[in-house]
Amino acid sequence: MTKIILCGCNGVMGRVIDGVVAEDPGAEIVAGVDLFDGVENSYPVFKDISEFSGEADAIIDFSKPEALPSILDYSVKTGIPAIIASTGYSEDELESMREASKKAPILFSGNMSLGVNVLIDLLRKAVNSLPGFDIEIIEKHHNKKVDSPSGTARMLADAANEELNGQMSFVHGRVGNDTKRTPNEIGVHAVRGGSIVGEHTVIFAGVDEIVEIKHTAMSKKIFAVGSVRAAHYMTGKPAGLYSMSDLFSAE
Amino acid sequence: MTKIILCGCNGVMGRVIDGVVAEDPGAEIVAGVDLFDGVENSYPVFKDISEFSGEADAIIDFSKPEALPSILDYSVKTGIPAIIASTGYSEDELESMREASKKAPILFSGNMSLGVNVLIDLLRKAVNSLPGFDIEIIEKHHNKKVDSPSGTARMLADAANEELNGQMSFVHGRVGNDTKRTPNEIGVHAVRGGSIVGEHTVIFAGVDEIVEIKHTAMSKKIFAVGSVRAAHYMTGKPAGLYSMSDLFSAE
Amino acid sequence: MTKIILCGCNGVMGRVIDGVVAEDPGAEIVAGVDLFDGVENSYPVFKDISEFSGEADAIIDFSKPEALPSILDYSVKTGIPAIIASTGYSEDELESMREASKKAPILFSGNMSLGVNVLIDLLRKAVNSLPGFDIEIIEKHHNKKVDSPSGTARMLADAANEELNGQMSFVHGRVGNDTKRTPNEIGVHAVRGGSIVGEHTVIFAGVDEIVEIKHTAMSKKIFAVGSVRAAHYMTGKPAGLYSMSDLFSAE
Amino acid sequence: MTKIILCGCNGVMGRVIDGVVAEDPGAEIVAGVDLFDGVENSYPVFKDISEFSGEADAIIDFSKPEALPSILDYSVKTGIPAIIASTGYSEDELESMREASKKAPILFSGNMSLGVNVLIDLLRKAVNSLPGFDIEIIEKHHNKKVDSPSGTARMLADAANEELNGQMSFVHGRVGNDTKRTPNEIGVHAVRGGSIVGEHTVIFAGVDEIVEIKHTAMSKKIFAVGSVRAAHYMTGKPAGLYSMSDLFSAE
Repeated sequence: MTKIILCGCNGVMGRVIDGVVAEDPGAEIVAGVDLFDGVENSYPVFKDISEFSGEADAIIDFSKPEALPSILDYSVKTGIPAIIASTGYSEDELESMREASKKAPILFSGNMSLGVNVLIDLLRKAVNSLPGFDIEIIEKHHNKKVDSPSGTARMLADAANEELNGQMSFVHGRVGNDTKRTPNEIGVHAVRGGSIVGEHTVIFAGVDEIVEIKHTAMSKKIFAVGSVRAAHYMTGKPAGLYSMSDLFSAE
Repeated sequence: MTKIILCGCNGVMGRVIDGVVAEDPGAEIVAGVDLFDGVENSYPVFKDISEFSGEADAIIDFSKPEALPSILDYSVKTGIPAIIASTGYSEDELESMREASKKAPILFSGNMSLGVNVLIDLLRKAVNSLPGFDIEIIEKHHNKKVDSPSGTARMLADAANEELNGQMSFVHGRVGNDTKRTPNEIGVHAVRGGSIVGEHTVIFAGVDEIVEIKHTAMSKKIFAVGSVRAAHYMTGKPAGLYSMSDLFSAE
Repeated sequence: MTKIILCGCNGVMGRVIDGVVAEDPGAEIVAGVDLFDGVENSYPVFKDISEFSGEADAIIDFSKPEALPSILDYSVKTGIPAIIASTGYSEDELESMREASKKAPILFSGNMSLGVNVLIDLLRKAVNSLPGFDIEIIEKHHNKKVDSPSGTARMLADAANEELNGQMSFVHGRVGNDTKRTPNEIGVHAVRGGSIVGEHTVIFAGVDEIVEIKHTAMSKKIFAVGSVRAAHYMTGKPAGLYSMSDLFSAE
Repeated sequence: MTKIILCGCNGVMGRVIDGVVAEDPGAEIVAGVDLFDGVENSYPVFKDISEFSGEADAIIDFSKPEALPSILDYSVKTGIPAIIASTGYSEDELESMREASKKAPILFSGNMSLGVNVLIDLLRKAVNSLPGFDIEIIEKHHNKKVDSPSGTARMLADAANEELNGQMSFVHGRVGNDTKRTPNEIGVHAVRGGSIVGEHTVIFAGVDEIVEIKHTAMSKKIFAVGSVRAAHYMTGKPAGLYSMSDLFSAE
């Protein structure tokens, strides 16, 4: 039984994780942490993680960057693995995770879904297996999204660039009579419309053949499922900085 | 038997039309017109259409805009329908077609393929049937193409805009933290890679549902097939300005 | 204000319609009908529609075929339009709808979503515009679905067959060394996996070009939105048998 | 300079390889082997490979299974690597390749395209990274193809099954009211229409997310490019049985 401390338990993602854990006979939430307490929870909820002194196997954090210091402290002090699943961290905050990971097991990822993390692994393999193929990325999201391209599309483009020794530049739209593609560019296209949850396609176009890899998200639940799976994986792990792809390659 | 005069018979598209007519038991080329004569043809070839005085049912023109005046003259004088399938005409040249069409049957289209013309009809119907849906267009072509977006993508975007009373603006790429979609924009995305012949997708994204229409071209042959089909259709038609969509709605 | 009587108000789809009407300032539910009463409703709920004697503009029925006779009776007696959105009707029950529609306005459809009904219209247009193209249908649904192909795929295949004078036969899978396609077949392929809500693609494959039309459903909400839109449309209509495509062509 | 002996040099694929080698400054054909000699070749052509005694780095075989014994003999005698790219071998013939590979470098593959072989590698990775996801395969080919599903679809299904310890069964079509998917099935769907060259999609459908990998072939040239690339790779290799995936993982 994986015993979970859930930070941000009363937020949108916290509620979704509640549902996912309820369906998982091998996991249970032993404590929640949230400044907001207007929700009825089936477990004790604390204002700060330091107030909880019971037994636990993993921390899942879907709260805010502000909560990061106390979570890292707690993880270092107790050795309980921390899964940091929020986003929007500053470079200093990312550095504090790296620092903490010398003494405690810390997993951090910009996208907790299994599928997207598998997609990144497939992309790395494809980039190396298809030299000279032109790479283009298309992502689709709902019409309320304010930033383009999506963080996940950036992760994909960055991963491709990393495999290609950082020699690629990104192009975010083509218009005019002089837009001929160069071999060193990756087109990243942001489609917006309706209530699309999230779709990412990477195209590898060669001479007379195309390879494509694609991920479609149908709900936020997949991010919760990924973080609970990470909790199972991180249970009992030694200190170190982990990512979701460690988790998948281990299986 | 549809007797065809083929202008531009020794160019790339002319050769492709040759092959298509050879497979069509109801059509034959009775004369070719081309300034270049290094090709062996199974029919007489003239430098200018005015030199041919035999019987014919339709003219297919895949030559250059420079040949337009003599072709229109010939069509007006003889009443033989002219199918103008080249591109790159100036506004004056387009006006000369409209003028000639008062006295002769003239068909003009920026894309002779059946499929793309059907796509435009489907698009018009979908735009009107799906009010409030966000429209986005993705086109894909080979990495040698110099202009973006493709002429066909522009035709699609223009047709959508026309159905929406010209109130739409076109967006050719989104990047940054302030790119929230407005209801009055149509995103037009140009993907480039490998040797892709041509692909056009129109997405209609609404709340919790998406309708898509898509055309994939696999070779230039489809432009030849479309123009021969237009020759059959135009045979015996009265004066007027025709388009490929007349042809399809008539069937 | 469109006043709605909601039959099957306490079932899954009834609850979804509740939510859709709550967001529509031009619609309200004035009465519910359901045998089950364990739900708290903001409107009076009756066991049978005949018990309600207030004013109303339209009936939306998402209950069971068993409720059909009393709903049709009510519609004939009061002239209030009935939108029958359940499925699984016998031929006798369908006949009773046709009979009732001589005296009352009745709308019946196997799929209430706007998108799927638009797709059927696009399909009819494409079938007629693309003679000789091979038609294949792919539908995708979740792994709990027991019937194949989906009712909507059957509607699409039937519509194509109708446009082709009923000369097509349906093929539901190909395996072996002697499966060459004949011009008179429509392949209908049922893909099953995960929690896919519903996707329908119709492929028109010709020589060197392909036209595709596709619908993706992301939630059940679209069926509720379609039925409320039908309620607005049917308000004040004379007797007759209506379908969702009347609704769209009228707009 | 990779010196190639091309068996089946005057067949369809042989002509395509001619063109590919002509564009590759690092490769040349030093001898052809073909029973048919009606083609003008830029290199000497022999009836049997044993007649050629010049220097060479690799053999590419796109001829018939009947030529296999003399090719394997030649490879064993000279140590020149043989790339067997034909299909339709009996179990005995496959065994003779395995036998020969103990003394000579032999590469055999049912599909020489880079893309399809990369797709198989991606598939193996995805199968292992996405436990519990439902796997479905869709392949699309032209309406002249007589066998279903395609050999490549079988390769993909077999590879998935191999990774899953041979516990999967294949389903080639679903129709009826009792077709609920079981976790141990892989649906393999053969779409046929028009002149589609070849398309293979593998779908991994999980709860609320889908991963897809897809290959599109646009011409036969890709099989020629793959075999020439294999010739470069096999040059100088020691005895052993090689496959196209060795080639890619080595890069």
